[in-house]
Amino acid sequence: MTEEFIQSRQNPRVKNLIKLQERSARKKLGLFVAEGLRELSRCIEKIGAEEIYFCPEFFKSPEHSKFIENIRQQKQIPLCRLSEGAFEKISNRQGCDGLIGIAKQWDCSLANIKLPTEKAPLILIVDSIEKSGNLGALIRTADSLGADAVIVTNAVCDIFNPSVIRASQGGVFSSQIAVASVDECVSWLKEHNIKTFGAHLKATKNLWDADFSEPTAIVMGSEKDGLGDDWNNILDELVIIPMSDGLSDSMNVNVAAAICLYEVRRSRCK
Amino acid sequence: MTEEFIQSRQNPRVKNLIKLQERSARKKLGLFVAEGLRELSRCIEKIGAEEIYFCPEFFKSPEHSKFIENIRQQKQIPLCRLSEGAFEKISNRQGCDGLIGIAKQWDCSLANIKLPTEKAPLILIVDSIEKSGNLGALIRTADSLGADAVIVTNAVCDIFNPSVIRASQGGVFSSQIAVASVDECVSWLKEHNIKTFGAHLKATKNLWDADFSEPTAIVMGSEKDGLGDDWNNILDELVIIPMSDGLSDSMNVNVAAAICLYEVRRSRCK
Repeated sequence: MTEEFIQSRQNPRVKNLIKLQERSARKKLGLFVAEGLRELSRCIEKIGAEEIYFCPEFFKSPEHSKFIENIRQQKQIPLCRLSEGAFEKISNRQGCDGLIGIAKQWDCSLANIKLPTEKAPLILIVDSIEKSGNLGALIRTADSLGADAVIVTNAVCDIFNPSVIRASQGGVFSSQIAVASVDECVSWLKEHNIKTFGAHLKATKNLWDADFSEPTAIVMGSEKDGLGDDWNNILDELVIIPMSDGLSDSMNVNVAAAICLYEVRRSRCK
Repeated sequence: MTEEFIQSRQNPRVKNLIKLQERSARKKLGLFVAEGLRELSRCIEKIGAEEIYFCPEFFKSPEHSKFIENIRQQKQIPLCRLSEGAFEKISNRQGCDGLIGIAKQWDCSLANIKLPTEKAPLILIVDSIEKSGNLGALIRTADSLGADAVIVTNAVCDIFNPSVIRASQGGVFSSQIAVASVDECVSWLKEHNIKTFGAHLKATKNLWDADFSEPTAIVMGSEKDGLGDDWNNILDELVIIPMSDGLSDSMNVNVAAAICLYEVRRSRCK
């Protein structure tokens, strides 16, 4: 395979890459960008890549050169070297590491979620999350605490946003993720006999008193307003995470989700 | 009290305010900046303020005007109005809300920490935290989960950094915070018979099997490397937060701290 070397920031391929930072272009082309060694490696493991752009001047470790050498030998993904100036133009990060890949968006429909059969499933549902960094952090948390899938409802940011991918630390590639409307999600939950729990400041039952032995979904609402009525009216049970009388208004949404997922795992192991 | 109205970005008072974004200037002057209605209100509750700068053009709610009107009537804190251009120059935020105060740093020594006598104290110790946003988030988490104090050891960022104050959502003003060396901290812990627990991937005891009935300190290490030897060799007990076999390398430090603090509260309530 011949490798192109692009030196100009004005090159049309560079311009196309920059466009993928916009949601509309990602949607239209069905593509997204995975930046950084860890993210790109996990992306390739999951769904491969269409093209890889690299700039050795920014490589941060010998692993980076090894990674490109492997890709070169496998001859499956086209490589394109960029000048520092051109790479900086397409990078979405401060302190980039010289690796960016383009990959095809995969199908995030609920029908693709595979539930475990040997244990009660544990799902994290995140509704109306506004900040891409928070959505990514929630996906990382779900992944690190062993949730079987993440379902995004009333999606504000798309999961192929570079900031989501980054904050998830590659978790978008290892977790099962679906994007759905609340109605679709509720039907799917019913179909699989999954009980829904939401954290609410006015709930009377403590989180640690809930019974999570059945298939369970934890539903988290937006950073600012918590769960909206479309979910509150549907949930099987509301629980409260007992908090201090400290001054802070509320817990960070990612912290609240982590505590709920931890409690499900803990209660199931005891 | 007469109120000055500064319109020039070159005004010496504006330049002095900008300097407070640097740690060295904060240390030299013993001052810091609290930006935003919530943060500034909590700052005033805790330690007052030396001066307040405001720009009504940026106010985001009627609460902002009310806040300034109250300060004006109380005649205790000097007010200074800034032009939009001058305010933008001193603001540390995108989407500022037109309120910035200067306050005196308080004494963060261990000797000032007051421990509860009616229950076993719960302390969060954060060591070598590198990112100011993470330090702030940890302080918010400790506050929201009822830790009695936060102790910062091997401090990389100072707690008066504007990003720490912001990420803590004002938690720096409601929590008891001390900054100390590891040696000082260890002596203090011994003096108060506080047992130390650290989360470690190689620990064999599950977090939920630990006994937190005695006075407890949870010790968290840096984002990248976890706990260093200076702490690892001293800790009374190592515990593991059971994790999935997902691909993500590790849990976010704030998530891990939240889960540990939650578990202490849960186990004490059962």
